Amino acid sequence: MATRARLLRGVGNGRCSHVSSLVAPAACRGLPKATARLASACRSSALPPTRCLGSRSFSGTSASRAAKLTTDSYPGLTRDSRFSQLTPEHVAYFKQLLGQDSAVIDGINADAAADIEPFNEDWMHKYKGQCRLVLKPGSTEEVSKILRYCNEKMLAVVPQGGNTGLVGGSIPVFDEIVISMGRMNTIHSFDEMSGSLVLDAGCILEVADQHVAERGYIFPLDLGAKGSCHVGGNVSTNAGGLRLLRYGSLHGSVLGMEAVLPDGTVMNDMCTLRKNNTGYDLKQLFIGAEGTLGIITKLVVQCAQRSPAVNVALFGIESYEKAQRAFREAKLQLSEILSAFELMDGTSQRLVHQVRGGTRPLENDYPFYCLIETSGSNSEHDYEKLEKFLEDVMSNEVIADGVVAQDATQIKTLWSWREGITECIGHWGGTYKYDVSIPLSEMYLIVHDVKARLSEAGLLGETDDHPVVDVLGYGHMGDSNLHLNIAVRRYDKEVEKVLEPYVYEWIEKRQGSISAEHGLGLAKKNYIGYSRNETMIGLMKQIKTLYDPNGIMNPYKYI
Amino acid sequence: MATRARLLRGVGNGRCSHVSSLVAPAACRGLPKATARLASACRSSALPPTRCLGSRSFSGTSASRAAKLTTDSYPGLTRDSRFSQLTPEHVAYFKQLLGQDSAVIDGINADAAADIEPFNEDWMHKYKGQCRLVLKPGSTEEVSKILRYCNEKMLAVVPQGGNTGLVGGSIPVFDEIVISMGRMNTIHSFDEMSGSLVLDAGCILEVADQHVAERGYIFPLDLGAKGSCHVGGNVSTNAGGLRLLRYGSLHGSVLGMEAVLPDGTVMNDMCTLRKNNTGYDLKQLFIGAEGTLGIITKLVVQCAQRSPAVNVALFGIESYEKAQRAFREAKLQLSEILSAFELMDGTSQRLVHQVRGGTRPLENDYPFYCLIETSGSNSEHDYEKLEKFLEDVMSNEVIADGVVAQDATQIKTLWSWREGITECIGHWGGTYKYDVSIPLSEMYLIVHDVKARLSEAGLLGETDDHPVVDVLGYGHMGDSNLHLNIAVRRYDKEVEKVLEPYVYEWIEKRQGSISAEHGLGLAKKNYIGYSRNETMIGLMKQIKTLYDPNGIMNPYKYI
Repeated sequence: MATRARLLRGVGNGRCSHVSSLVAPAACRGLPKATARLASACRSSALPPTRCLGSRSFSGTSASRAAKLTTDSYPGLTRDSRFSQLTPEHVAYFKQLLGQDSAVIDGINADAAADIEPFNEDWMHKYKGQCRLVLKPGSTEEVSKILRYCNEKMLAVVPQGGNTGLVGGSIPVFDEIVISMGRMNTIHSFDEMSGSLVLDAGCILEVADQHVAERGYIFPLDLGAKGSCHVGGNVSTNAGGLRLLRYGSLHGSVLGMEAVLPDGTVMNDMCTLRKNNTGYDLKQLFIGAEGTLGIITKLVVQCAQRSPAVNVALFGIESYEKAQRAFREAKLQLSEILSAFELMDGTSQRLVHQVRGGTRPLENDYPFYCLIETSGSNSEHDYEKLEKFLEDVMSNEVIADGVVAQDATQIKTLWSWREGITECIGHWGGTYKYDVSIPLSEMYLIVHDVKARLSEAGLLGETDDHPVVDVLGYGHMGDSNLHLNIAVRRYDKEVEKVLEPYVYEWIEKRQGSISAEHGLGLAKKNYIGYSRNETMIGLMKQIKTLYDPNGIMNPYKYI
Repeated sequence: MATRARLLRGVGNGRCSHVSSLVAPAACRGLPKATARLASACRSSALPPTRCLGSRSFSGTSASRAAKLTTDSYPGLTRDSRFSQLTPEHVAYFKQLLGQDSAVIDGINADAAADIEPFNEDWMHKYKGQCRLVLKPGSTEEVSKILRYCNEKMLAVVPQGGNTGLVGGSIPVFDEIVISMGRMNTIHSFDEMSGSLVLDAGCILEVADQHVAERGYIFPLDLGAKGSCHVGGNVSTNAGGLRLLRYGSLHGSVLGMEAVLPDGTVMNDMCTLRKNNTGYDLKQLFIGAEGTLGIITKLVVQCAQRSPAVNVALFGIESYEKAQRAFREAKLQLSEILSAFELMDGTSQRLVHQVRGGTRPLENDYPFYCLIETSGSNSEHDYEKLEKFLEDVMSNEVIADGVVAQDATQIKTLWSWREGITECIGHWGGTYKYDVSIPLSEMYLIVHDVKARLSEAGLLGETDDHPVVDVLGYGHMGDSNLHLNIAVRRYDKEVEKVLEPYVYEWIEKRQGSISAEHGLGLAKKNYIGYSRNETMIGLMKQIKTLYDPNGIMNPYKYI
């Protein structure tokens, strides 16, 4: 053990260790040369991973750019004439109902116009609504009364959580009333025996995770926006995130739900038990419904045992084919401790470096990088498994180079090269984002094809007269989920024409999904037909009509 | 390693090793005496677990008893007069449609009466229908045509898989037509990179698991009836089984589904990808709908990496409180490798022994037994974790005694003490079965309370004039899921009056579920109100009416 401990600690230098400059082969316990160098940098940390989260505020890198009104970006949209116009009487009703001034932001009043702006625009500055009233209910009863009133008066509403969405789902289009859930943020209980957490929909994901972390558990969802997003919004969009690979989908881990239907009916299905086969599992319909059927007010979530040992490694890989081999090998060898397998292409890492500066984790450039995370109950065991895995993928030349984080700070640093992508690539002005599922064998091919297409059209280049900066791909390889991103200097109709419907047709041919985890919102509403057949869409519309016959819930979006 | 290997192999004697009679303490590498003895019996097997499955055929232990007609057991049921009577013209249509004689069992014809019996009765001989026509479609198109015709002609139907259900859900009540799915049993594809399995609903669970086992994966569901039950039936009843603790619920692992609606519409949602957020997840409604909304014809299931190392241990425990402590400790220490934590009470093990004879795994009697299984990728690591866990629970006197399986045969033997319960306790004539979820702290209390109540009523005793043999509890402790069973010499109205609604009221008070995993079927239809409020039931009925306005799908049951 002493030998290993020395090897592990001998390389600490305050930054992630570049494995090809590490300890001499002689010290490497007889392992093959290259492998031993990599393995020697490997260690386990007893700390849970905490990471640099992409800023979701309006002070981000693109703050200078003001969003266009959604109605200008989407001139085909017309306000549904069935909906009433907001009147002072309506506002007076809500003020009387919610009882405190701060719970109602009245945009009709000119003084409050600035206060209402953050609710009218998304963090990417892509969508901008014209809402003039924000309501902040403090209880399920208030949500129920608000919706009943709106349903009777034909006032359209948009439920809003942390407003971290990527498809415009939580931003009004016209003058819909925003129902902001931030005041409903109580954690009600946590059962330390079973791991079931009862909490309000307006709780911030990171706060919820911290609550269970202190009790030895982990919230079964993690994503870059965790510091701002609400668990209710996560469930409403069926967020997938970084560790779906390990903890599964919200369809499996949401045990109970309270939701308010458009007519004010409270659907109370707050089961705290893992198994309850008594009738149709209606709450499932609300998971991923993006606020179009009702508003989720409370949740019961099954949390998993938190792993005390966490390792993170980042590799450089010569080809996408080798990245697939690395993934298959990681599943085989790391199996129950594998908690993330993320892919980043060379372009994404180059752009992050260009924006942020600093030292890159690996010396050379590679066309692909993978970040893997293991989470287990025994750091020595996890270390051994990881070491064996690294030996194999190095000696078989599946990976070309790599670093392994040596402590919690380095874990955070390595993750920041993955999680920083979203924010950094917006640096030049904007991003066209596609969040897609494609069978793994063909997943990355779409990046090549889209890049070639934009180049051929003369839209991609290094100078300002080219709208497109570059095309890149990254995402959750463990879930066949690619984020295809086109970094642009400005949003441009010519670029859009080249991209759509091309991208959707490309995905349809591979029977992929045009929205893996971001949802439909406004951005994908018109493209659902590329992933769902007419029968399915018809059946979905039937459900929408059943629950929301007046169509007041989050109109103009979804299906 | 040599020392450990010797210890592991030194006790092989063809049966499970009783830990308190093992190797001398001197050989035990300095561990505390009792612990070392236990730990020394521990080993890992490279074989996957295969187990003794409870017989689900009519040649079982209770075969001599004939089932009463369901209409006699439930005299309150009346045939829905909206449904047509079966005519020779209907039969002729189906014969022409299905094209081969064996696909239609025509009970109107006296010669076929015996052939139809297995479809009219459940394996527990509790439910007996009066169906006179069994159809065995061979394709989705045939299912669609059958249902469209039945819907038009107002012929009620009962979808039937392996007929291994426990609540009468797959048995006709009156003359409903049985649609048996056994001919649709093709495994269409398996993606070795992603683990997604595409198969027909009529595939037998064990066959499906075997198929993926050969490719290094495990089907994410396992249960005693795996040799007979169909995956379509598993999904229709949202089966939970033995390893939900590890692989989660079917709501998370069913990726895609094809189902036929009552009007013949084919709902094709055969996504093979883990993430697809494009609209309402309608397939979720069919998971656990017990064939009341349509018939599932195909599935895509996410399979997990199969663990090469499997360990099974069985403990004797002095109290339910200590069983809870053992569970908490197992979650903490075995965490990612824990794949089952099963509870069996002393009564259940005594009865199994009484029926089957043979040598019991432990020498002494204990009020509780726990069976734990670990599944991991590295047998040495798993061994160490298990050893450490055993050290702790032995030295802290959480468990009193235990055995650890030494090879695949012993794994099977230990599991048989858990899985044999269902069949053995039917030995005296029958079983009243309650499959309930109760918060863990109070879970076992219901067994005491029910036993006391039956004793007070003079119904429980050792002689034939007492209908009740004994009251026992066992189940999936990891899921707060108890099987409360009352072994009886005969089904008896007096017993039923003592049990119901008492049991349901007891569960309602603890906010438990009256059906954790078996479903509602006919048995629990009238009791759903103990686990669901009126609003929820109303919303469920709305869904039923939406999909099956004529009510032809599996009538008289569910909600």
